[in-house]
Amino acid sequence: MISAGYVRTISLTPPALGNNTADVQRLEQALKKELKTRFVHLPWSLSASLPAQLREWGWKAKVLLFKDRRSFRVVDLLDPKDPEPVLGAAVDIGTTRMVISLIDLETGKKLAETGLDNPQAEIGPDVLTRIHHARTPAGRKELQRLAVEAINRHLARLCRDNRVAPERVFLLAGAGNTAMTHLFAGLPAFGIIQEPYIPCTNIPDTLAAERLGLAIHPRGQVFLFPNIGSYFGGDLLAGILAADLDRKQDPCIMVDVGTNAEIVLGNRDWLMACAGAAGPALESGVSQMGMTAKPGVIDRVSVEPFTRDLIIHTIDGQPPVGICGSGMIDLAASLFSSGRIDIRGKLVPEACGGRLTEVDGMTAFVLVDACSSGTAGPIRLSQVDLNSLTSAKAAMYTILEVIVSQMAGLSFSDLERFYVAGTFGSFIDPTSAITIGMLPDIPIDRFQVLGNTSLKGAEQVLTDPDAFDRVMAIRDTITYIELNVNQQFMNLFSGAKFYPHTDTSRFPSVKV
Amino acid sequence: MISAGYVRTISLTPPALGNNTADVQRLEQALKKELKTRFVHLPWSLSASLPAQLREWGWKAKVLLFKDRRSFRVVDLLDPKDPEPVLGAAVDIGTTRMVISLIDLETGKKLAETGLDNPQAEIGPDVLTRIHHARTPAGRKELQRLAVEAINRHLARLCRDNRVAPERVFLLAGAGNTAMTHLFAGLPAFGIIQEPYIPCTNIPDTLAAERLGLAIHPRGQVFLFPNIGSYFGGDLLAGILAADLDRKQDPCIMVDVGTNAEIVLGNRDWLMACAGAAGPALESGVSQMGMTAKPGVIDRVSVEPFTRDLIIHTIDGQPPVGICGSGMIDLAASLFSSGRIDIRGKLVPEACGGRLTEVDGMTAFVLVDACSSGTAGPIRLSQVDLNSLTSAKAAMYTILEVIVSQMAGLSFSDLERFYVAGTFGSFIDPTSAITIGMLPDIPIDRFQVLGNTSLKGAEQVLTDPDAFDRVMAIRDTITYIELNVNQQFMNLFSGAKFYPHTDTSRFPSVKV
Repeated sequence: MISAGYVRTISLTPPALGNNTADVQRLEQALKKELKTRFVHLPWSLSASLPAQLREWGWKAKVLLFKDRRSFRVVDLLDPKDPEPVLGAAVDIGTTRMVISLIDLETGKKLAETGLDNPQAEIGPDVLTRIHHARTPAGRKELQRLAVEAINRHLARLCRDNRVAPERVFLLAGAGNTAMTHLFAGLPAFGIIQEPYIPCTNIPDTLAAERLGLAIHPRGQVFLFPNIGSYFGGDLLAGILAADLDRKQDPCIMVDVGTNAEIVLGNRDWLMACAGAAGPALESGVSQMGMTAKPGVIDRVSVEPFTRDLIIHTIDGQPPVGICGSGMIDLAASLFSSGRIDIRGKLVPEACGGRLTEVDGMTAFVLVDACSSGTAGPIRLSQVDLNSLTSAKAAMYTILEVIVSQMAGLSFSDLERFYVAGTFGSFIDPTSAITIGMLPDIPIDRFQVLGNTSLKGAEQVLTDPDAFDRVMAIRDTITYIELNVNQQFMNLFSGAKFYPHTDTSRFPSVKV
Repeated sequence: MISAGYVRTISLTPPALGNNTADVQRLEQALKKELKTRFVHLPWSLSASLPAQLREWGWKAKVLLFKDRRSFRVVDLLDPKDPEPVLGAAVDIGTTRMVISLIDLETGKKLAETGLDNPQAEIGPDVLTRIHHARTPAGRKELQRLAVEAINRHLARLCRDNRVAPERVFLLAGAGNTAMTHLFAGLPAFGIIQEPYIPCTNIPDTLAAERLGLAIHPRGQVFLFPNIGSYFGGDLLAGILAADLDRKQDPCIMVDVGTNAEIVLGNRDWLMACAGAAGPALESGVSQMGMTAKPGVIDRVSVEPFTRDLIIHTIDGQPPVGICGSGMIDLAASLFSSGRIDIRGKLVPEACGGRLTEVDGMTAFVLVDACSSGTAGPIRLSQVDLNSLTSAKAAMYTILEVIVSQMAGLSFSDLERFYVAGTFGSFIDPTSAITIGMLPDIPIDRFQVLGNTSLKGAEQVLTDPDAFDRVMAIRDTITYIELNVNQQFMNLFSGAKFYPHTDTSRFPSVKV
């Protein structure tokens, strides 16, 4: 049971001749006292039934609240003896995948969670195509409907599995990047991708679920995380919340590699955010080349200490079919630590031996040969792939260096925690990432994988009224820095293209 | 043109690469600056169209605002070149009559005004019958619909006469007593008349016009004046606002005689209100016996100085058909000053001469004989009628004495202004009222008739954003006093039953 959540059972002093406050104001006053706040908004639609309810319920009510930018607001009033659970739904509105969880608002417990492909991918797998499609009101409506209907369907299933009606879901909180938030809400999004990159809104605020067609309680309310700007979205704010960055004493950093590389640095006194133009470089090096996790995908690569053979691990132990991002980083680290690539990131023929082959005039390393593969052909890493990875890891390190050293005036060792957010980051082995010079060489125990912080942040907003104010405060105070790829950046970038770095003193733990 | 009203034309700085605030927040920020306020609520429904509008209108917009208890709110956004007027409607929601006025929100000018019978009288002419009828949701709905449809009809006519569409009415403000406000809004009202006299709500706050079925702009907003309690309604708050009582330096008093006698006393530092149980006595003495104003009704009576004949004046100069409240007070004053009634309020046969007659064993004064009358019979005032008037005037004076002297510790001469509100009060001749000892003997120029203060207050709320906050502040700070008819009251009342009073020193201007 969470005593300070959005569901409160309130007892009122019954009226009397000397105490003749009106019913609505009687409840408002009790709620203000209970919530220690100056104002509680009770919507007009709940007024007419209140007198009979209060008398029937013996001057008690189970009050379901939520917040908007102006105050607490009453979402619904329930019989204090109502035995059905009071639920909320959290949604990670991802470009490719969405995740929904069902939360009991009275206990704070998660009842269920499910993932689904974002059906907006029918219109276009990438954000750009979707934003173009959303130029007309009909296109916006279509994209919005696709996402909402999929959520309705999956939410209905989660509810059925838990033997509750979807009408028992009163609150929904969603976190996505700026474009996804706009498309989910049916807002024009074209300004996001067109200079000077102006979103329609950065603060959707709390709104009625029925406005979006969400099939939850008719009076249900929806909170969509605000954005900082076109390239810094609500998913990141949810991440800051989930990581408690805004409450830390010592500076911490959070890195989320998704469509962009997004970095937040700071503590309870200051926060700075940076979404880099280097993000796409990073992505093309890691995410795009890598496959999404599924059975047979190589997710771990290591070196056998004696034989120096490469040991691969696939998801579910199935025959290998490809390699994912975390596997790529492991592979590069293994190749480097076993001397198969040099400090410039080039494959070393002498060390690779028979594993080297040539494809279309390009050297490639054969990780799995055709007969061991789960596909018809061999699984290879070409020098071009490797060069992309080198650029990507160099970009990542350079962005980190710029924000931590140049902008915040800190050194990496000042960071109390290094949070890795996002699905991709969840699987990276920090030791491998350090080995190739992608992440700074700080003690391994300072790295912490947060998993799906969009979902976690959304869940937090459903269960903790303080979270709303924290999100708004973070949004208002965070300094957003546009990363300029200038000459100085390029100089740092060149140094970071080595394995682990031209300045090896930065990576004492990496034995070259 | 009113520069500080609810219609503002806002110019925005166009976005640029270094100034990439989202469209919604760009407008919000400009409005906060323009209105010098911390928060402006822009409803979700206006977000989607904003980007295209701002670009089409060259980063200008005519913004129509209103207030609710939490902040300013944007009601609609208009093309700054939109040539049509932006209107508001003020409504005095009276038990018997309603009055509607049409206000140009940009100039603050009144375009038209009309009165209509409250069609809820079909259900019952008195409030009690209506409240009983409103015990069922269907009954509430019916009463609500009757009032709203009548307003829609008359508002449509006013608009047609002024060649504007009713959709150009964006705001509506209504003031009525607590019961009428509840019935207009479709809220359960039974608590108002049943011990311990608990209204459903004392603060309806701003709400969507469409919720009440009002046929104004689809996004139109309605403000209903709040109540202090069951017996002190929004009409009185509107009156305090219209009289500027909350801004006076020296204490002033406002008296409204309607269904109850309601009195407000105070200045900018304190306000006290009193709605008396003596009200009905007053009404039965004056209002009920008197007729409503219509052609032929005697509204003025005076004494010819030489002949001491009574001179009557009728509305529109038509043959007399009856007498209204103000005529009654004039008549009593004339009878007293001409010695036709004595200090106990009894008809003096020697002074009345042939004017006296007997009806059903009761002495009566013939004011107009049958042949001069516009009806078939004579117009008479019986001793019983006179006794009622005596009780009524005594009750009025006693209430004033209790609130001014006993409760506020002031004397009548401390009152800088004596405001008379309400339709009935509008026609009273203060000199006559002083002559019979109904009103205190203070200089005549301190009396001021305010007319329909419900309507005036409602109009003020439409045109002056400060008025909203003043209403809420008055509501929160006013001290409401329940008048107890105790022994002390009865003693004062007995003294006040004389003409003008047992203590004649209180009425130096009245020559007995």
